[in-house]
Amino acid sequence: MAQPASSPRTIPVAQLLAESFLFHGLCADLVQEFVAAAQVKLFPKGKVLFLQGDEAESFYLIQSGWVKLFRETLDGTEAVIDMLPSGHMFGENAIFEDNQFSFSAEISEPTCVVQFPSELLHRSIQLHPQLALNMLNAMSRHRRQQSREIEHLSIQSAPQRIGCFLLRIAQPAPSGEITLHLPYDKLLIAARLGMRSETFSRALNKLKSDVGLVVTGSTVYCSDYTKLKRYACGACSDEYPCEDLR
Amino acid sequence: MAQPASSPRTIPVAQLLAESFLFHGLCADLVQEFVAAAQVKLFPKGKVLFLQGDEAESFYLIQSGWVKLFRETLDGTEAVIDMLPSGHMFGENAIFEDNQFSFSAEISEPTCVVQFPSELLHRSIQLHPQLALNMLNAMSRHRRQQSREIEHLSIQSAPQRIGCFLLRIAQPAPSGEITLHLPYDKLLIAARLGMRSETFSRALNKLKSDVGLVVTGSTVYCSDYTKLKRYACGACSDEYPCEDLR
Repeated sequence: MAQPASSPRTIPVAQLLAESFLFHGLCADLVQEFVAAAQVKLFPKGKVLFLQGDEAESFYLIQSGWVKLFRETLDGTEAVIDMLPSGHMFGENAIFEDNQFSFSAEISEPTCVVQFPSELLHRSIQLHPQLALNMLNAMSRHRRQQSREIEHLSIQSAPQRIGCFLLRIAQPAPSGEITLHLPYDKLLIAARLGMRSETFSRALNKLKSDVGLVVTGSTVYCSDYTKLKRYACGACSDEYPCEDLR
Repeated sequence: MAQPASSPRTIPVAQLLAESFLFHGLCADLVQEFVAAAQVKLFPKGKVLFLQGDEAESFYLIQSGWVKLFRETLDGTEAVIDMLPSGHMFGENAIFEDNQFSFSAEISEPTCVVQFPSELLHRSIQLHPQLALNMLNAMSRHRRQQSREIEHLSIQSAPQRIGCFLLRIAQPAPSGEITLHLPYDKLLIAARLGMRSETFSRALNKLKSDVGLVVTGSTVYCSDYTKLKRYACGACSDEYPCEDLR
């Protein structure tokens, strides 16, 4: 189970855009055009927003909740390629991909998304060089994250990948202790980390015995995060805390 | 071993740029500026061009040969994040990453690279919106490839990943037969596919028995590529031939 249910925070669209890297430093008129075209929608868990191959008429910004991006293989297996929390954007890339989504998107928790017309982004990016530069910056950041993920899938063990996942959402206390709530279902975490659920369970047990992790339901406790750091980050080319993965 | 050694093809810099997606549709003066700033260099196998974290003063276009992009973990394991053949560019991304390389680059075969000043790209991209749009297109394509790679590392088996690798470099004859030369060392292929060398050997043997692959040195033969396609592409969300992975 994910975090205890809470009513979604409602951040005004204008503020959400102001905080979004894509809209940083743009002229007020342009931002206002996006605000005016925005549609805020609340979706229940399980709702499929679009499927891989669908025509991309919109792109999305998550106001609250979680969205799963995935693809299905020909033989019916689902590959979870990302899990996005609030503040994240998705589907904007399709304007460079013949206006087709290259993945499917499904709502994982009750989620509020802001929907914008792709056509507005496509038109604006030709007219406003700063928007193109912002998008390059955002895409470059994403490329770095994906590259790190490929590195981890290639060389980290399953317990190390779980350790890395936990460290990225942990906020260590001055004493070194960490207590955290798993942000979404364990099955989904396993899929997001590229593991079968049995592998995930075995790997979590190994983490418990190797670094003294205590897992109670969706709550994880570790008395000393530096143990976890040594365990996971030794098999990474970056150093903790790795800003680019947050 | 890789393909039989041959003298590197020498493609003139101007032609190489004309064929590069990044320079597509740019005004002749701007392309000429890059041609004038280009330095062509021939490097032997094993030469390290730069290390992760180095200041990025240049970016590179491969004229002939192979370049390995990699990172080293704290405990000394090497993760091969890409193997690039001629026509590919690398290091250009650093202008969005505080001018630091986020990976290391090493020459894998005798290789001719064209070196350009990063500063020229950084300056030009602010002044020429078309260059920014071209870079967005290129980055978007790369993001799609990485995303597919994450999918494969997450859900494909080791023999399926090797099958996919072979299909991407194969050119099936009308009869359905394929004969191909492995483009570089088997150890490097294993590392590029995120496998230990023992896993690679076992997976290759499984491919031999499951789809009748014949491997002689660096030559691979398969009497019917559709068998290989069924084997590997069933566990992929794309359909063969998958243009975005070429």
